[in-house]
Amino acid sequence: MADYLKMWQDLGMDVEMHNQLCEVLPQAFGDVYLTQKNRPEAMDYFNFVVAEIHGVRPVELIEHQKKGGKVFGTFCLYVPDEVVFAAGAIATGLCGGSQFWVPGGEKVLPVNTCPLIKASVGARLDRTCPFFRIADMFVGETTCDGKKKAYEILGEDVPMYVMNLPQMKRRKDILAWAEEIKDFIKVVEDFTGNKVTEESLADSIRLINAKRTALARLYDLRKNENIPISGKDVLVISQIAFYDDPTRFTEKVNKLCDELDQRVKDGVSVFPKGTKRILLTGTPLAIPNWKLHHIIETSGAAVVGEEMCTGIRYFEHPVDETATTIDGQAEALAERYMNINCACFTPNDKRIDDIIRLAKEYKADGVIDVNLKFCELYDTEGYKVERALKEAGIPILGIETDYTDSDAQQLSTRIGAFVEMLSK
Amino acid sequence: MADYLKMWQDLGMDVEMHNQLCEVLPQAFGDVYLTQKNRPEAMDYFNFVVAEIHGVRPVELIEHQKKGGKVFGTFCLYVPDEVVFAAGAIATGLCGGSQFWVPGGEKVLPVNTCPLIKASVGARLDRTCPFFRIADMFVGETTCDGKKKAYEILGEDVPMYVMNLPQMKRRKDILAWAEEIKDFIKVVEDFTGNKVTEESLADSIRLINAKRTALARLYDLRKNENIPISGKDVLVISQIAFYDDPTRFTEKVNKLCDELDQRVKDGVSVFPKGTKRILLTGTPLAIPNWKLHHIIETSGAAVVGEEMCTGIRYFEHPVDETATTIDGQAEALAERYMNINCACFTPNDKRIDDIIRLAKEYKADGVIDVNLKFCELYDTEGYKVERALKEAGIPILGIETDYTDSDAQQLSTRIGAFVEMLSK
Repeated sequence: MADYLKMWQDLGMDVEMHNQLCEVLPQAFGDVYLTQKNRPEAMDYFNFVVAEIHGVRPVELIEHQKKGGKVFGTFCLYVPDEVVFAAGAIATGLCGGSQFWVPGGEKVLPVNTCPLIKASVGARLDRTCPFFRIADMFVGETTCDGKKKAYEILGEDVPMYVMNLPQMKRRKDILAWAEEIKDFIKVVEDFTGNKVTEESLADSIRLINAKRTALARLYDLRKNENIPISGKDVLVISQIAFYDDPTRFTEKVNKLCDELDQRVKDGVSVFPKGTKRILLTGTPLAIPNWKLHHIIETSGAAVVGEEMCTGIRYFEHPVDETATTIDGQAEALAERYMNINCACFTPNDKRIDDIIRLAKEYKADGVIDVNLKFCELYDTEGYKVERALKEAGIPILGIETDYTDSDAQQLSTRIGAFVEMLSK
Repeated sequence: MADYLKMWQDLGMDVEMHNQLCEVLPQAFGDVYLTQKNRPEAMDYFNFVVAEIHGVRPVELIEHQKKGGKVFGTFCLYVPDEVVFAAGAIATGLCGGSQFWVPGGEKVLPVNTCPLIKASVGARLDRTCPFFRIADMFVGETTCDGKKKAYEILGEDVPMYVMNLPQMKRRKDILAWAEEIKDFIKVVEDFTGNKVTEESLADSIRLINAKRTALARLYDLRKNENIPISGKDVLVISQIAFYDDPTRFTEKVNKLCDELDQRVKDGVSVFPKGTKRILLTGTPLAIPNWKLHHIIETSGAAVVGEEMCTGIRYFEHPVDETATTIDGQAEALAERYMNINCACFTPNDKRIDDIIRLAKEYKADGVIDVNLKFCELYDTEGYKVERALKEAGIPILGIETDYTDSDAQQLSTRIGAFVEMLSK
């Protein structure tokens, strides 16, 4: 990624520190991804995006800014991208998936904070993430204690707007979320100087729905007995979904799906016959966190689905496109987003229904419940999840991990034993 | 507390396990409290309440139930006691302040959960707390991730109602909380079979305001240069406030204040002249958690105030008594409760203003910011609190602790050094 040096300098990044990351990332991607056999050709695009992760998309965002456009950085899939795009702005995910950024976060946050939050804050404060440098405004949400309070500290360094996500899902909570979305529309309008109209919002709803449809098509292909693509490859696509231009991303995912359709017709699988199928559930896996997929898929199993924010939660439930007023569209958006079953809600029993349904749909032999260390929400909910799955007769393994490699050997052993158990 | 054996058996308690607690509690109270010199005579009542903590009040609650009354157990000071008393029911705090209950909570909750939550859940599941056995209904709130999710597990064992506390304090959030209070009124009416009327609610608002006024009077007395009562003694009173009959409690606190008024006139202090004055801030100290006060007050300093739920947050800001309709009263209650500056809100800068104001009012020489381990909210907010106090020139010491005694020696050393530093 050396060609982007000037851009990084112009962005005020700590180039020297950032170089350390640039040096290790290609090696990691090579080890985890490029060693796979029989990868679909259409993965080339996604390989390229990862190889240039801090270059190619940042260039586009800066181009957009040069034309007077704004960029909004977001941390969580409850913030509706549709509103941002409807105002002619761009929404982008932010860095947060590597141990590289964690020490920077620990300078201001408690060590007992989940690595995703620590890494996000560290990436910003250490000036080693171009997306954090580029974004004109940051949009947070009250999804968990850790993020909610970390935004207060981040907000001293960046322009931060926080949306108040209700903690329950009664009708009045959905309407309250619709009100928050309408408030957000005003904020985006004021900040961009562009009006969000019924037409522009309808367009952006269709834009993001198309992305969701493409991802749903990709995930559906994993339900085949012959699995035409590895879990790892789908994971990185799900991660790129947060950053990439939505039109191009959708096109590239659909192109990949065309190739995978042919593989299904031809009975091609990237895994040997009888490979055990794993559904993951739990906390998000931000790029470049590929640790667990790598361990599972080098332990004789295949990841066939992720009931995660970097996964199925991201694309299930398209937004209803029939509303024709801003009020109606805001309500349709609220209903869609409040349909995501994050552990931040109470009660959240529908997530358990989801996991059991998805385990069947994806023909999973077992489920691994992954919790990022110090995520109190998913950790506590794991008690009910694991009990419910046992009651449903679905083998389940609960795992807690962080971004370090210190537990990789131990995880390998545990996951290997779990996969072996599934084979008996 | 042996006379209550039959009652505990009838409550379905694990009497054998509970006996272990009964054996150690008097010793702990004796060591921490009864060794103090020159205690106010009116502390006798509070000594008695602690000595009989699992006996005398439970007897009254059961008497109330025998007459057809209901008992509501609460975990947090955002749940408005006024509504409960207005329906002829009784609100009571629940157990949660001892390491004794922690292992029981860890059976179902992550170890990385704050000890207060683990102890509460353990006290219920292990059947070693009479209040948890007596309460007919439990009322939770969405104040933190840990409690919010723990209530889902507790709710499988007890009838649980959870109020959705907004995470911000804009006008619409205060009105949303007023709506939650009105919903709660309906729940309490349905459950008790008693109507909450304007009159009964006005009565209960006055009842609880009188308790607040008495506590404010007690705390005001600590602002004197000659401190007429120890921090420890006030702490246990603040803890008892959550359990005791409000009318009697108010009367007893006022009686104590009469005695303390005389001490002030006579220039009597329970501390030597020049003793350094400490304001505490942070997470709640539930009964029988006296650890920190004991360490501070045996390290040559005096605790003169607690910016805590077990402290000033509990009684500051009386409810406006002028409203004459249920809607108006609910709004007055919402405004009062949303005036409490818990770290669950974002932003929560008013808490920092509070701490600086209180440090001045109570003439504190220094502030100790106490965080219960794994409380992400207060831990993260501590970063801004400690920075703001340093900027204001107020010496501050940040401490993280739990319910075990394992860090007592280390805390003594750190606090001793802090107090010594204040003396220079």
